[in-house]
Amino acid sequence: MNGDLTNGAGNLIRTALDAGIEVCFANPGTTEMQLVDALDAKPGIRAVLGLFEGVCAGAADGYARMARKPALTLLHLGPGLANALANLHNARRARSPVVNLVGDHATWHLPLDAPLTSDIESLARSVGWVHTVASAKDVARDTAAAIRAAREHRQVATLIVPQDSSWEPVPEATESVPPSARPEVDADRVSGAVDLLRSDPSALLFLGGDALSEPGLRAVARVRDATGCHVLHETFPARLERGGSLPAIERLPYFPEQAAAALASVRSVVLAGAREPVSFFGYPGQPSRLLPEGARVLALARPAAAAAAALEALADALDAPRALAREATRPRPPRPAGPLTTEALARALIALQPESAIVVDESATSGLAYAELAWTAPPHTVLALTGGAIGQGLPCAAGAAIACPDRKVIALHGDGGAMYTLQSLWTLARESLDVVVVICANRRYRILQLELARAGVRGPGRNARVLTELSEPALDWTALARGMGVPGVRAETADALSDALGRAFSQRGPCLIEAVL
Amino acid sequence: MNGDLTNGAGNLIRTALDAGIEVCFANPGTTEMQLVDALDAKPGIRAVLGLFEGVCAGAADGYARMARKPALTLLHLGPGLANALANLHNARRARSPVVNLVGDHATWHLPLDAPLTSDIESLARSVGWVHTVASAKDVARDTAAAIRAAREHRQVATLIVPQDSSWEPVPEATESVPPSARPEVDADRVSGAVDLLRSDPSALLFLGGDALSEPGLRAVARVRDATGCHVLHETFPARLERGGSLPAIERLPYFPEQAAAALASVRSVVLAGAREPVSFFGYPGQPSRLLPEGARVLALARPAAAAAAALEALADALDAPRALAREATRPRPPRPAGPLTTEALARALIALQPESAIVVDESATSGLAYAELAWTAPPHTVLALTGGAIGQGLPCAAGAAIACPDRKVIALHGDGGAMYTLQSLWTLARESLDVVVVICANRRYRILQLELARAGVRGPGRNARVLTELSEPALDWTALARGMGVPGVRAETADALSDALGRAFSQRGPCLIEAVL
Repeated sequence: MNGDLTNGAGNLIRTALDAGIEVCFANPGTTEMQLVDALDAKPGIRAVLGLFEGVCAGAADGYARMARKPALTLLHLGPGLANALANLHNARRARSPVVNLVGDHATWHLPLDAPLTSDIESLARSVGWVHTVASAKDVARDTAAAIRAAREHRQVATLIVPQDSSWEPVPEATESVPPSARPEVDADRVSGAVDLLRSDPSALLFLGGDALSEPGLRAVARVRDATGCHVLHETFPARLERGGSLPAIERLPYFPEQAAAALASVRSVVLAGAREPVSFFGYPGQPSRLLPEGARVLALARPAAAAAAALEALADALDAPRALAREATRPRPPRPAGPLTTEALARALIALQPESAIVVDESATSGLAYAELAWTAPPHTVLALTGGAIGQGLPCAAGAAIACPDRKVIALHGDGGAMYTLQSLWTLARESLDVVVVICANRRYRILQLELARAGVRGPGRNARVLTELSEPALDWTALARGMGVPGVRAETADALSDALGRAFSQRGPCLIEAVL
Repeated sequence: MNGDLTNGAGNLIRTALDAGIEVCFANPGTTEMQLVDALDAKPGIRAVLGLFEGVCAGAADGYARMARKPALTLLHLGPGLANALANLHNARRARSPVVNLVGDHATWHLPLDAPLTSDIESLARSVGWVHTVASAKDVARDTAAAIRAAREHRQVATLIVPQDSSWEPVPEATESVPPSARPEVDADRVSGAVDLLRSDPSALLFLGGDALSEPGLRAVARVRDATGCHVLHETFPARLERGGSLPAIERLPYFPEQAAAALASVRSVVLAGAREPVSFFGYPGQPSRLLPEGARVLALARPAAAAAAALEALADALDAPRALAREATRPRPPRPAGPLTTEALARALIALQPESAIVVDESATSGLAYAELAWTAPPHTVLALTGGAIGQGLPCAAGAAIACPDRKVIALHGDGGAMYTLQSLWTLARESLDVVVVICANRRYRILQLELARAGVRGPGRNARVLTELSEPALDWTALARGMGVPGVRAETADALSDALGRAFSQRGPCLIEAVL
């Protein structure tokens, strides 16, 4: 069968290649053997193995955020998809296009309820578009439909492929995927925003999605300068350009009381690529909608649409000079010294991170200082945890590194979240990806200790300590990294961290730094 | 709030305690803080932290198989449940009772579609019973319903708890869970089986579920001796007693052509606790039903019912003497020497494993020799991978060790599957569990290489090799274990393995042996 692609699997891979798909993050099983064979015969798609499906899904998300096009995942039936769901949830919230290929039993095997049989469609539907192939002759058409669904609506699309659809002989065929239409700027919304910003000098421009691209932010700088409006960006952006000559934009705080305080005086808001801000969780006696009651809200562009283009149209309509788009580059802070605090961690990174780094940020509480200060760093791209499902940062870094092999990737990661998909380290080693992993080792679920305190729990007892502390035993991240083929080093002072970062940034390939906080 | 349990969360934990629940395998988040607080105030339930939800689910499955009662899991919204699904799928196939508690946003927060919002019910429904609490005053009743559903139907039951149902004040209440009725033996089926076994001397007794308990197997020995019937057990039993004076029972082979050959001469079958055998996967041109066409099939007991009691009734009806129930204890084989093959691994384990060990077997291809030979070992309990979702063995071992602290647990595990939930090693260390992990390090997905060959792929190319080989880099399991606080040693010869096993079995607490095959 090797090389002989006159079957459904062959048409699937042929159609994906034709649509410009270049990477497949995979962990296949028996029901996907014909798809593996087809990938093997058509090596134009690079297969990347993840040792757990959460790695594959997170990598596809990171790849899509940077490449701005989908990768494939290849997953083994319901359990394989289930293992990918948490990071597909994050991808859904990031509006990342991802095309999942999920094998299933041959149609005539399904009714026997063999051990691996389960309801795959219901799982897939929870994260986006889903379709099950009915026959080998439909595979090319259905593959094109899945890729189109992912691209056009920037969503997760799952194609379930019963194994007989893969192995049944059919003539060679491909189906082409039409290019996605560019979303149009809505002139009425732009003029409405002009009126709103001119009538209310304290108006807020709230940014998300494409507004956080370089063109979007340069337009924001012009709009801000022309109107004096306030600007904030959403707390967990899918992709944010930051630093260098880009405008410094504060992010909306995470906790609702701080967010509500930041928004207390807002009477009118222009949403650019962002939805109306709501709190991450609900709390007793606190409003979940964060804007003051009665605030006027105008959406300049939907999140999925071209917010950047709408912002440029807005800046032009305000007659804001293009010269305002660039701010003076800020001097780098010096390397920090002394104990290794979260602020020292932030300063060390900012002092040393290379130009054009991609910073994957799942640092949770340990990264608050970095998020606050990093606009003084050289230009870099930030990929945040969009959906709150922890364990996204390491695989996202792998995917970003595959999309952008010429850029240094920094994964700034909490230790609790990193344990969720630590298998990613092996993929970094296997693919020699240029990723510096910085583990913020505070050895606890710090956010939960804060939330317990916020919930009024004083002096937690045994069970509460068991569930929030990661000491006893402390994780040895350098050993974990070494076990997967990634060199690792531990840093316990600001100086040691700066030294380790300096070495890591001066060479290529994966490494891990355990920053003991 | 600490200690003050006049809220929904308090009534939930109170009801669970009242129903005899003793353990909660947990990885909570913000929406579960009141449940953590309630666990803290009522420490009669032991909270065990898993650093990934797949650990919690697999541990709950292993606990249920050994304790024959449910544990709780505590999971954080849709992504937390999603991460648990693969091992809940295995639990469903094992008919293990498990009670999942899954927090959700407060009811009034849900419509805002905050980042962590998702369709939890659809995910839960894919593995069993599900109910969402409507109000704090319903929590006690709904908790009792979930525990009852899990116990009576030996299934996974998921209770979704919106956070306002946890924190809203309600008077203290519990609801008691009635004891489950014992399933009754069906006298007609028993006499039908007598007729069938007497009329067909080549009849097959096919065993699964409770038939593989010690009383079940002793009754099987009597039936076999009285009738001369053939006996096989299902390929992946949830729990099998084996070795010592128990009858040696062969298992149905995994690959369908071997299974069909083993069943080729069968004209009539009595199913005891097992379903009619079907192949694990469908293959082109091969039947998925494994029994010869036209074979008579009689179910002595449904899988969930008391197959052991039905077998005893059958043995009595056949007037089979009770003395036949015990076989002579077989002498142990000597320690193997020479290269470390899968057969040497099997012989070393059999030569050295302690009495009454619990062997969690996710060894895939590496454990075929052990499964074939281990009836010569001292009495032990086998817990197999029931649902085919790999990554079940390590957490299952943790759960079994918590259920049976006085028995040595041996996790015999393929390296590919072990990577799925390697976070389990930390829980072994944290809880000082008496588990010897034996990693069968063949550094490949051997089963997939076999399946590729079966699918006709000759001389796989780059992508097929990438997706089936785990070398480049090789995993260092001793470093991975050490990174999580578990001592580890590598064995590359049969002698070294025997030495390592001897040391491991002579002491208590977790350790890992990487057996390089």
